[in-house]
Amino acid sequence: MRMVDLIKKKRDGKAFDKNEIEYFIHGYTNDDIPDYQMSALIMAIYFSGMSDRETTDLTIAMARSGETADLSAIKGIKVDKHSTGGVADTTTLVLAPLVAACGAPVAKMSGRGLGHTGGTLDKLESIPNMNVSLSMDEFIDNVNKVGLAVIGQTGDLAPADKKLYSLRDVTATVDIIPLIASSIMSKKLAGGADAIVLDVKFGEGAFMKNYDDAIKLAKIMVNIGENAGKKTVAAITDMNQPLGLAIGNSLEVIEACETLKGRGCRDLLDVCLFLGSNMLELSGMAKTRKEAATMLEDALKSGEGLDKFKEMVTSQGGNCAALDDYSLLPQAKIKHEIKAGSDSYLASIKAEELGLCAMRLGAGRATKDDIIDLSVGIMLNKKVGDFVHKDEVIATVYANDEKKLDMVLPDITEAIETSKERIERPKLIYSLVTKDGIQQY
Amino acid sequence: MRMVDLIKKKRDGKAFDKNEIEYFIHGYTNDDIPDYQMSALIMAIYFSGMSDRETTDLTIAMARSGETADLSAIKGIKVDKHSTGGVADTTTLVLAPLVAACGAPVAKMSGRGLGHTGGTLDKLESIPNMNVSLSMDEFIDNVNKVGLAVIGQTGDLAPADKKLYSLRDVTATVDIIPLIASSIMSKKLAGGADAIVLDVKFGEGAFMKNYDDAIKLAKIMVNIGENAGKKTVAAITDMNQPLGLAIGNSLEVIEACETLKGRGCRDLLDVCLFLGSNMLELSGMAKTRKEAATMLEDALKSGEGLDKFKEMVTSQGGNCAALDDYSLLPQAKIKHEIKAGSDSYLASIKAEELGLCAMRLGAGRATKDDIIDLSVGIMLNKKVGDFVHKDEVIATVYANDEKKLDMVLPDITEAIETSKERIERPKLIYSLVTKDGIQQY
Repeated sequence: MRMVDLIKKKRDGKAFDKNEIEYFIHGYTNDDIPDYQMSALIMAIYFSGMSDRETTDLTIAMARSGETADLSAIKGIKVDKHSTGGVADTTTLVLAPLVAACGAPVAKMSGRGLGHTGGTLDKLESIPNMNVSLSMDEFIDNVNKVGLAVIGQTGDLAPADKKLYSLRDVTATVDIIPLIASSIMSKKLAGGADAIVLDVKFGEGAFMKNYDDAIKLAKIMVNIGENAGKKTVAAITDMNQPLGLAIGNSLEVIEACETLKGRGCRDLLDVCLFLGSNMLELSGMAKTRKEAATMLEDALKSGEGLDKFKEMVTSQGGNCAALDDYSLLPQAKIKHEIKAGSDSYLASIKAEELGLCAMRLGAGRATKDDIIDLSVGIMLNKKVGDFVHKDEVIATVYANDEKKLDMVLPDITEAIETSKERIERPKLIYSLVTKDGIQQY
Repeated sequence: MRMVDLIKKKRDGKAFDKNEIEYFIHGYTNDDIPDYQMSALIMAIYFSGMSDRETTDLTIAMARSGETADLSAIKGIKVDKHSTGGVADTTTLVLAPLVAACGAPVAKMSGRGLGHTGGTLDKLESIPNMNVSLSMDEFIDNVNKVGLAVIGQTGDLAPADKKLYSLRDVTATVDIIPLIASSIMSKKLAGGADAIVLDVKFGEGAFMKNYDDAIKLAKIMVNIGENAGKKTVAAITDMNQPLGLAIGNSLEVIEACETLKGRGCRDLLDVCLFLGSNMLELSGMAKTRKEAATMLEDALKSGEGLDKFKEMVTSQGGNCAALDDYSLLPQAKIKHEIKAGSDSYLASIKAEELGLCAMRLGAGRATKDDIIDLSVGIMLNKKVGDFVHKDEVIATVYANDEKKLDMVLPDITEAIETSKERIERPKLIYSLVTKDGIQQY
């Protein structure tokens, strides 16, 4: 087999068989196939596409390109959850404790933020002494003991994906739906969970800009998961405005705590309950999603979700007092309030723009090596459709640098649009994609 | 400007401006742009195409990527000639002396053979002591003195093309017509001629397999040449069977000499006269192509063409006695005759297959670094449409290795098909593409 012939085959619109896919993934991981051949192949895939069968074979080959996590020492059915990335999306910090409180083991490997989207690990690290770098044994131990652990990826999982992703990033081949699907799913498969709940976001602040692309991505990922023998479902949710109210690491920890205390933003909670009820159903802890939703709401009301969060933080070395006394979290020096110019309705809050503003304040990374400021960000008071009175505070910007603040303020202001007309609250949860089809909501 | 944005631009079907093309050709030549970005861009060009204007800009940028030959010290209008490559195509060795004998200066930089096509330099080197590596000054001197010199490329002409071609070769992106055109024309422009006559071959033994692709390639190349200020015309000629009768280096030198002595194959001579009359017209030595053709036939009949060839060989150090006493050329040890099995007509002689057989005998290179055997090859006695009697010799195979001979004989035999039915002689010269349009023949 020669790589040049495989490039030609895909260029000419033909499908690869499993052996061919294993050949180039194995060869690329081992540096036997050079970047310049792989980038030509990926561009050919951009134009010629890949069938669902090819995408599954590719994903499994990437999942097997390095180590795979063995979670069999964890009792119960392990359900993983993955979001395609959004703004003010603190779902994991709310959802994981609630699901664990209902008895399903949550062994979650999370990522860091890049660009306008935040990362769970960064958020957790704003809790003093919190350790997200457990060994595999400690990780399994913690899940068995607490029911819940959230850590960074351990071991060399799916190295082919890591290498391919870096290459796609510099060759204008990131936005290829089958490759996005196989990138996400290869890490999930290597991560060792038994079942997977996906949150595919679409809209201005998401990677998928429209509903149809989100459905396409969701269907491919569900198909890959099921073909690989893992029960997989995917929710399609809105990311035209930030999901919660907080953008920025310690601000999002506060929002997660407030939500677990029953004082959070309704949209964030709704997404958590929707994804969580799917997780509980797949884990076998609930017979139906309705039963699961009731269990989750009970865990919220009783405070068991908050307790589980505190238990996890403590067992990973973190100071759980910070979850009640927020002054123990990193604090920004400057707080700048943005007020309504007149009585009006909030017409749009641009998620990507606000995510980028938070990043420029220091809350996120423009490149992988940037160091982030855990204290800064934006706290919204309102969502689209809400009414605001003249001079009412719409948002508070947290900053440590006057210059940076002055640079982003005009963009933040521009990202929040008001209207004299009444504005409907936008829809939040659109569909659930399962192996049996699409359920609309 | 960022390369990743340029890749995306072409991927999305947009056209580059001149600055963008200069940016990536300059950057790639200087190793500032890595192979993996360039190969992704080329694959995007495969799918998105390039306009004639982009192709011209690309060609000029590549022509300027290194040194350019300055032929201004040669008196007269220098007309270059280029063939897209064929089998038994000894045109240069016949045509260049005839054109020079008619008074037009011929300063020709030629190439070596690769794959199933031969190279003029290899053929010339079968003449004892022939030197094809003159310095630029010697080259110009020889043309001014003799009217004719044929050498290998001197200096670092169009290095961007060299680098790009190697990359295309291993990324399944060789067969992109605008890139084929710009590769050929960048070297021609850097070579410093005032006008260019192209021979675009099509058919089984050519790079372009059909007439339409040949026309497309010819039109783009003529357009590039004219836009770069060089008068350019392109002949479209047949390469479904070998052009002449000889395949192999010393055998082709013999065929060139025989043709210059008036005893050659008519097809080869016809192509030489057609291309030569265009060269004489562009050089201003003849007012019309008809007048030019008469001049060339006179030079042939009078023996001035042969004399010019001998003069060139002598002035480049070669032993011109070998052009009369062919035993001074490299001799193969084995001569194997292939005879007709019955009275019949030759129905097809597969040019590419015979070219590859000659290569396997040692006459050509499978890879750039192969050493060739100048004495071996195949000498045909007949062409398509000719009648052969039972046991008449159709071809003689010249070899130095019994094993290699045995390996290729079945393929040679299979490449020559006979028929009981009368077969028409195929058409040879199809069209001439000029800036004013296409003339059919």
